[in-house]
Amino acid sequence: METTVRNKQVILKHYINGFPEESDLMIVTAPDAMEVKVKPGSSTILVKNLFLSCDPYMGTFMREPDSGSSEVAVETLSLLDAFIPGKPIAGVGVSEVIDSDDPCFAKGDFVWGIVDWEEYSTVNSFGRFKIDISINVPLSYYTGILSVTGLTAYAGFFEICSPKKGEAVFVSAAAGAVGQLVGQFAKLMGCYVVGSAGSKQKVDLLLNKFGFDDAFNYKEEPDLDAALNRCLPQGIDIYFENVGGKMLDSVLMNMKVHGRIAVCGMISQYHIETQEGIKNLPVVVYKRIKMQGFLAFDFIDKFPKYLEFVLPYLKERKLVYVEDIVEGLENGPAALVGLFHGQNIGKQVLKIA
Amino acid sequence: METTVRNKQVILKHYINGFPEESDLMIVTAPDAMEVKVKPGSSTILVKNLFLSCDPYMGTFMREPDSGSSEVAVETLSLLDAFIPGKPIAGVGVSEVIDSDDPCFAKGDFVWGIVDWEEYSTVNSFGRFKIDISINVPLSYYTGILSVTGLTAYAGFFEICSPKKGEAVFVSAAAGAVGQLVGQFAKLMGCYVVGSAGSKQKVDLLLNKFGFDDAFNYKEEPDLDAALNRCLPQGIDIYFENVGGKMLDSVLMNMKVHGRIAVCGMISQYHIETQEGIKNLPVVVYKRIKMQGFLAFDFIDKFPKYLEFVLPYLKERKLVYVEDIVEGLENGPAALVGLFHGQNIGKQVLKIA
Repeated sequence: METTVRNKQVILKHYINGFPEESDLMIVTAPDAMEVKVKPGSSTILVKNLFLSCDPYMGTFMREPDSGSSEVAVETLSLLDAFIPGKPIAGVGVSEVIDSDDPCFAKGDFVWGIVDWEEYSTVNSFGRFKIDISINVPLSYYTGILSVTGLTAYAGFFEICSPKKGEAVFVSAAAGAVGQLVGQFAKLMGCYVVGSAGSKQKVDLLLNKFGFDDAFNYKEEPDLDAALNRCLPQGIDIYFENVGGKMLDSVLMNMKVHGRIAVCGMISQYHIETQEGIKNLPVVVYKRIKMQGFLAFDFIDKFPKYLEFVLPYLKERKLVYVEDIVEGLENGPAALVGLFHGQNIGKQVLKIA
Repeated sequence: METTVRNKQVILKHYINGFPEESDLMIVTAPDAMEVKVKPGSSTILVKNLFLSCDPYMGTFMREPDSGSSEVAVETLSLLDAFIPGKPIAGVGVSEVIDSDDPCFAKGDFVWGIVDWEEYSTVNSFGRFKIDISINVPLSYYTGILSVTGLTAYAGFFEICSPKKGEAVFVSAAAGAVGQLVGQFAKLMGCYVVGSAGSKQKVDLLLNKFGFDDAFNYKEEPDLDAALNRCLPQGIDIYFENVGGKMLDSVLMNMKVHGRIAVCGMISQYHIETQEGIKNLPVVVYKRIKMQGFLAFDFIDKFPKYLEFVLPYLKERKLVYVEDIVEGLENGPAALVGLFHGQNIGKQVLKIA
């Protein structure tokens, strides 16, 4: 191990307006070397980042804070602030402790939490989780199924939707980081589960790997309402919403009375200039639908309960988790931007060490 | 009392497409006389209807059942079906028992429940509530504050929105049957309450009779977003939704994190050809908003609890209730249609005997 390094970072060049593009980000190597140790008395931890999570919310964090969506996004997360031009972007990451002035963490520990997109970070213990390496799973899972992504699927499906055995569940972006888990959780609960995704390959995954009962490629359906009605002729009890726009409008027409919609995201709407209006919202009254937006961070107290739930299934191989791992910090911008065009298959992860 | 009568009814002439109009209904007097008594062994009750409630949902019941909104409305209510052309329309009514073959009801009792819009009805006991006349309030209140309307305000505000002292509450259609109660309940809870309505006279009522902290006439506000921001600069914790459309879009932009929206109705959207799209729905994610449609009928088991809550306030005159009473069955169509143009001030009631 070197005693000094020149840290490499992924920097936001400027606030964005439309979709995030690779050119909105740049890779910068620090001109000066940094010592690979923490200041005594600083109570900080120096970590080497191994895996970085690519998540859709990061796109909204690239917008100027007073320009609508980003502004509200910012006030919602206490662990993470909107990105600042000239500074690194940030997100969930898995890291190895290189040096520590915090008695709770020791050199050689593995941790996950929010980190800047860079090779080495000086962080504190707030919101930092120690990884139990005796659980024999890939470390990258702590950006996904064993981290905020997993908690997102768990909280949205169980806490917000209160599923019952036999209910009909529909998941959009179902082959994504969260969707694949919601679908599998729903199957474990004894639900009938249908998913939508944007390619034949993803639809195959849903049917053959994740055990969905039915699935369709939304890009090949001229009429989403008809596709939903074909797959779920009795209607939908639970919709796990990841996309928004036309899909939501069609789902509303297919919801059952007392249906529940966990609004995890509306990725189709984040970066377009004019939002597609949702026209079928009066259905919410007629059918007494509950629709609730949420962020996993609000359910962080449920994280231990989630691990108790998920780890046995993972050990017994009753759950699978598909990751799309890109290597190298310099490929981070492309990996992140690809999310907004559905290029990832499964959880998008960036491996940087 | 006559022994036979020729019953007068308000009949639906045909299914409607756009807004309900007076010409969609007609007053018909039965060609044959009916005896003013029940058949022995029928277990039925013959009632003389005194007051009929005019409610916005009745408009959606005038649409053809397989044409969208009405279809879904129908499957929601077990006590009430969509109206049928050639037959009387129906709704909540207060009646006097004239003759009874049901041991639970006696001649001279007053009851409320769903009745056809006619002078005399033969009904059964299902969903029929006996009125305790020792409670010294106008009988017409059993179409409103002491009936489904009151339960609507109570269930939507307390059960769905879980209000806390000091929270900021916004109510649309605030001078209406439900809105005036929500506003007063919110004040009793120690909330800061703002309402919108469609005339100066209604805004005056909100401020001077119902005790709202602030109010505005939405018809005189070129920018609803600005109006909300002016009245509730810190944002909205609870929105009691009665109108939909542009108001909802503006409210979404002004909601606080973890806000709650009880969707009681979207009267602006029921009878227009093309629904106004709601563009700001992604805010539901950023701000983790819960939005829930409901019908009072789902909370009918809470009715005794509601009466326990509301009666003491009513007796102590800590609650007021404004009704807009029109007399005569022949004026029913105009009274009902007027709802969709905001002509009523307070609860629209039809007095027919």
